[in-house]
Amino acid sequence: MQLFSHPEFDAHETVSFCFDAAAGLCAIIAVHDTHLGKALGGCRMWPYASEADALTDALRLSRGMTYKAALAGLPQGGGKSVIIGDPRRDKTPELMRAMGRAVDRLNGAYVIAEDSGTTVADMRLMAEVTAHVGGLADEQAVAAGRTGDPSPATAKGVFIGIRAAVRHVWQREDLRGLRVAVQGAGNVGYRLCRHLHEAGAQLWVTDLHAPAVERCVKDFGAVAVGMDQIATLDVDVFAPCALGAVLDDVSIPAIKAKIVAGAANNQLARPQHDRALMERGIVYAPDYCINAGGIIDIFYEGPDYDAARVDAHLERIGATLTEIFARAAAERRPTGEIADRMAEERFRV
Amino acid sequence: MQLFSHPEFDAHETVSFCFDAAAGLCAIIAVHDTHLGKALGGCRMWPYASEADALTDALRLSRGMTYKAALAGLPQGGGKSVIIGDPRRDKTPELMRAMGRAVDRLNGAYVIAEDSGTTVADMRLMAEVTAHVGGLADEQAVAAGRTGDPSPATAKGVFIGIRAAVRHVWQREDLRGLRVAVQGAGNVGYRLCRHLHEAGAQLWVTDLHAPAVERCVKDFGAVAVGMDQIATLDVDVFAPCALGAVLDDVSIPAIKAKIVAGAANNQLARPQHDRALMERGIVYAPDYCINAGGIIDIFYEGPDYDAARVDAHLERIGATLTEIFARAAAERRPTGEIADRMAEERFRV
Repeated sequence: MQLFSHPEFDAHETVSFCFDAAAGLCAIIAVHDTHLGKALGGCRMWPYASEADALTDALRLSRGMTYKAALAGLPQGGGKSVIIGDPRRDKTPELMRAMGRAVDRLNGAYVIAEDSGTTVADMRLMAEVTAHVGGLADEQAVAAGRTGDPSPATAKGVFIGIRAAVRHVWQREDLRGLRVAVQGAGNVGYRLCRHLHEAGAQLWVTDLHAPAVERCVKDFGAVAVGMDQIATLDVDVFAPCALGAVLDDVSIPAIKAKIVAGAANNQLARPQHDRALMERGIVYAPDYCINAGGIIDIFYEGPDYDAARVDAHLERIGATLTEIFARAAAERRPTGEIADRMAEERFRV
Repeated sequence: MQLFSHPEFDAHETVSFCFDAAAGLCAIIAVHDTHLGKALGGCRMWPYASEADALTDALRLSRGMTYKAALAGLPQGGGKSVIIGDPRRDKTPELMRAMGRAVDRLNGAYVIAEDSGTTVADMRLMAEVTAHVGGLADEQAVAAGRTGDPSPATAKGVFIGIRAAVRHVWQREDLRGLRVAVQGAGNVGYRLCRHLHEAGAQLWVTDLHAPAVERCVKDFGAVAVGMDQIATLDVDVFAPCALGAVLDDVSIPAIKAKIVAGAANNQLARPQHDRALMERGIVYAPDYCINAGGIIDIFYEGPDYDAARVDAHLERIGATLTEIFARAAAERRPTGEIADRMAEERFRV
């Protein structure tokens, strides 16, 4: 048993182990940092092979949320929770309510939200027993046509980020004729393609799900390409919007794009690939900075939701990336390292 | 790393690991059960050899508090916290405030109080940053002559418990001439001796600290005896009020008292000694039931403190013991086992 000396501990403020025998709940809530505000983070449900695996996952993800929220300029901290169990087999309403009660006992130090293995319906069950559920569209929001799905905001944020990168590299505002390879045409990727198409960009698209690609071909005149080609096309921008760890020892030397900027989480296979991109002269938009549209949207969700304020905040993703690119160029440091440092400047008080 | 499968886990609701790098805080807050109310429990500071030792201690103590509070009829749950560190070397005001902030993040699921290695002064530092500090006498209380020291209430509760045991064994209300051996004449033991003396009992007293014994000889006409003799005197009642684990394979066969009833914590060396006492025909007042006067007093501490209500609640220790003795006799089960079951009937809802 070790936590304070765990390799991923990184000064977490509170790590709580939560149990409910009647409901079968075994969960870990990791609160990394609350200097900027309550720790918001998703709740994963996963059949972890061991408690140790669950703990490691919670610690890593929780820390990432602190950096993401700080860099997004949100007055909130970073946290994450994991429920040990198979979401298809072990999930019951009582389990979700027990998790809600566990969250409630932390009284808002942690605000829970959906993540892989949990759904909006699960969050509604938790909301029966705790007020500390984030990103839930209320009845008013649903009546106004919102769903609580943060994908549109994420896509818009990535589009704003690509514009900032283009401005940095080529000092141009106009995206007409910009050649962009988009990996993944799901909820976020498809919407990103629409923004790019409306701005006059040319698109190359891939997805494991063929109809998703066909829709982009039909709607935006995109060129369909294979999953194994997308990273190495002769384009201006490569936008990973699907898998993680796509930037690795194999792909980086073959990338022809000058800019890598997309919505996927954990794009770097390992930390050193941040530097590898810089050494090849590629401008990399740090993933957790450019894909922050989702948590920005969740932050504003509620009875006072104001789309104009959300849009104004999404624009700040561009300003933050511009600062990252400028500092990285001036200091000759990788962009991911600069992003981490900028985040730390904000939450380490 | 295992917690949910830890041998001492016993369905703890929440176990939180709390850290503050600047203050050097490494602490564990264990909340065993809050079905009856907020979990109240002391905060130990101790230079544990390992995190694992600290965790085991927190889990054991926390569970014990649930049983104690439930059996005392208090609307509160059980918890305990441990700070890893040497109270003489590592304690700073900032460390205490950091612990207070950690408690505050649980928002009253856990209410902290002093315990070994922490002091009332430490609790006052924590109270600067959290409202969830228990048993602190406020200015008004101090002006009224109270100190926040729960020893008088503990002593009174033990006296009430001895009366209940005497009533059960000999059907008598009167303690005149009752022969009682008291092990330990400290804050609680001395006050217990006074109650017994005023009721007409004869006293035999021991303590590692000679002046404490002399005071009892002088004030109450007690007979001074050696530490190694006290448990086996030919008396009616043996009252352990000092060390834990005094009831073991060596002492139990030699005890001549018909009743064992005292203030010490953890009097049974091992769980099976509960049955060993029964088999020798000794009526044992379960320690955590008879010594609950302290937490009862802490529960009522505050601006509305009413000594008459505290006294009325202390009397319930006698009623609870009477029920334990009756059920134990009827079911031919050890009293400690009956006490545990009665506690569980109250907090397992």
